[in-house]
Amino acid sequence: MCSSAWAFRPGSITGTSNVADQNEHGREGKRPAPAPAPTRIRRPTGGRRPMTPLAKGDPWSLGGPPPGGPAVVALGGGHGLAMALIGVPVAAVVRVADDGGSSGRLRKAHDVPAPGDLRKCLVALAASDTVWREAFEHRFRGGDLDGHALGNLIIVGLTQVFGDFGRALEEAGRLLECAGRVLPATTDPVVLTADAGEGPGADPVEGQVAVSNSMDRIRRVHIVPEDAKAHPEVVSAIEMADQVILAPGSLFTSLAPVLCVPAIREALAVTRGRIVHVCNLQPQVPETLGLDATDHLRAVIDHGARVDTFLYHLGGELALDEIAVRALGVEPVAADVAGPNGHVHDPAALAKALEGLL
Amino acid sequence: MCSSAWAFRPGSITGTSNVADQNEHGREGKRPAPAPAPTRIRRPTGGRRPMTPLAKGDPWSLGGPPPGGPAVVALGGGHGLAMALIGVPVAAVVRVADDGGSSGRLRKAHDVPAPGDLRKCLVALAASDTVWREAFEHRFRGGDLDGHALGNLIIVGLTQVFGDFGRALEEAGRLLECAGRVLPATTDPVVLTADAGEGPGADPVEGQVAVSNSMDRIRRVHIVPEDAKAHPEVVSAIEMADQVILAPGSLFTSLAPVLCVPAIREALAVTRGRIVHVCNLQPQVPETLGLDATDHLRAVIDHGARVDTFLYHLGGELALDEIAVRALGVEPVAADVAGPNGHVHDPAALAKALEGLL
Repeated sequence: MCSSAWAFRPGSITGTSNVADQNEHGREGKRPAPAPAPTRIRRPTGGRRPMTPLAKGDPWSLGGPPPGGPAVVALGGGHGLAMALIGVPVAAVVRVADDGGSSGRLRKAHDVPAPGDLRKCLVALAASDTVWREAFEHRFRGGDLDGHALGNLIIVGLTQVFGDFGRALEEAGRLLECAGRVLPATTDPVVLTADAGEGPGADPVEGQVAVSNSMDRIRRVHIVPEDAKAHPEVVSAIEMADQVILAPGSLFTSLAPVLCVPAIREALAVTRGRIVHVCNLQPQVPETLGLDATDHLRAVIDHGARVDTFLYHLGGELALDEIAVRALGVEPVAADVAGPNGHVHDPAALAKALEGLL
Repeated sequence: MCSSAWAFRPGSITGTSNVADQNEHGREGKRPAPAPAPTRIRRPTGGRRPMTPLAKGDPWSLGGPPPGGPAVVALGGGHGLAMALIGVPVAAVVRVADDGGSSGRLRKAHDVPAPGDLRKCLVALAASDTVWREAFEHRFRGGDLDGHALGNLIIVGLTQVFGDFGRALEEAGRLLECAGRVLPATTDPVVLTADAGEGPGADPVEGQVAVSNSMDRIRRVHIVPEDAKAHPEVVSAIEMADQVILAPGSLFTSLAPVLCVPAIREALAVTRGRIVHVCNLQPQVPETLGLDATDHLRAVIDHGARVDTFLYHLGGELALDEIAVRALGVEPVAADVAGPNGHVHDPAALAKALEGLL
């Protein structure tokens, strides 16, 4: 399943520079305490270059900030994308091919897109003072409901009521008073597969969980069907964006699946907005074991994305070859964006660095 | 589990008179299409007698109508209570000892009060234009969630988040834009038992489902523990009410359990409001098989409730002995309140009849 989320964030973001690289382990694991989100989301009115005026009915109109500020879209999925949204003045995007955990069970039993990633992004964009933030993340223990997140059940229930996944996310976003919208990258049911191992004759690995756990080096991922349609509002959001963030997180199971949707790649090719790939901080074992920072960027470009800027954390665990990055036509930018433990980004620092690139 | 719901309703209720009697079968069965609810709930400013002014911080203040209108409380449970709330300018109450279906499973697995009845009342009091009405009543089919109503899952999830069932209902009521509040009659975990059969030595029947299905004639029900505490706001709502409705529905498994809570009986004894028992339209098999309308009233009084007025449907299936009713100190009032099929009340007609008794 491919999904994308976009949203807006306020942010006092004044810019900073160093490097950014990051890895988000433990997709359902304990999440570090988020930075306090601003209580009421207002798009900043400043910016380093002229902002694209947003038409009425633009993709950010629902719950978004007033026109005049930057239009930001983030693409990716999982914990990494949700983290990138916290405290960022942005729109964002998420992974899509989830077949594990509560989401996977719901997807199989109810024939709906996996809701987990979208739930996390909704929560990341939620107003800080709503009780529904905590309620959406609440996991039941015991009985029939064991392991299910309440937010997943609400999203699936609304999808069945409306017969429309997008509308369900819109309504959930309204409940959470989200600063922006969260949309699936594609509304088609898709399965993630990967070319892995060294030989060209190897069988592809199938399913997000299997890809994520593959001990063979992953070369490329695909979605089946390959021509899955993009959600139309995702396409227009990318086209109209001032900045498109390729979020940190699982490289092959969160970000790359979004890039597999043809219309999303095409929108990235033509957008006037600056496309910033935020690199992970460390390898994700086993998914990206052995890849350095430059390899992460190469993988994104190999999946068809245009990248303008590569934001990395200077002194991080992943080596970076600046000359190779420039040779790929990409500007490397260092920013001090790692949190105190060095494992995950500091949301406020990341937001500042990204605002500095507007 | 004993629970009570109260709420307010607008209503252009101008009064009508005939008789009311009713029975609500199929507690999880298909519900007849509700009468269109008024879009915005405003308490009527008129009334046949001076209204009790409501203090700030009164039990109706959350989502209730503005001060000056009648304060109405309804006691009972299940489908019958929810029906009585539709289109009524009121507050209402619900059954409490639910141990069957989705509610029973949730109660056992998660050690929370059974949410089903409270959910139905919340929905009955909800704004007509909210998507959450339908979402709360949505039942999942298949998988782990089979048979669960989304609203039940939301109530249980919020209860776990807050550690407080009452606060969970308050938040759910806010989401549904309810015209009034829904509260559990008691916050203590209680079990329903019944004295049934002819001999005094017979073992009591235990559990709401068992009581409801008992083939022996039920003489009296009890809650264990007998001294379960009433929700304090239920007590103050009854004491301050202009009208208290003893709702139609399951006599021994919905209404009587609420009356078993000592502080609720005491509040009924002292309230200045008129206590109206709305009689069922037909027997509920097997729970009330063989009881006529007068027997229904006697059962309510035997459970310790003061009753001022007995609202019944003239020409209904249950015979009524007016002289016997008066001998019990109760005023019989006939109203034409049955729906077209004669099995359930017409919500609008019932609302009118009840307003006529203010």
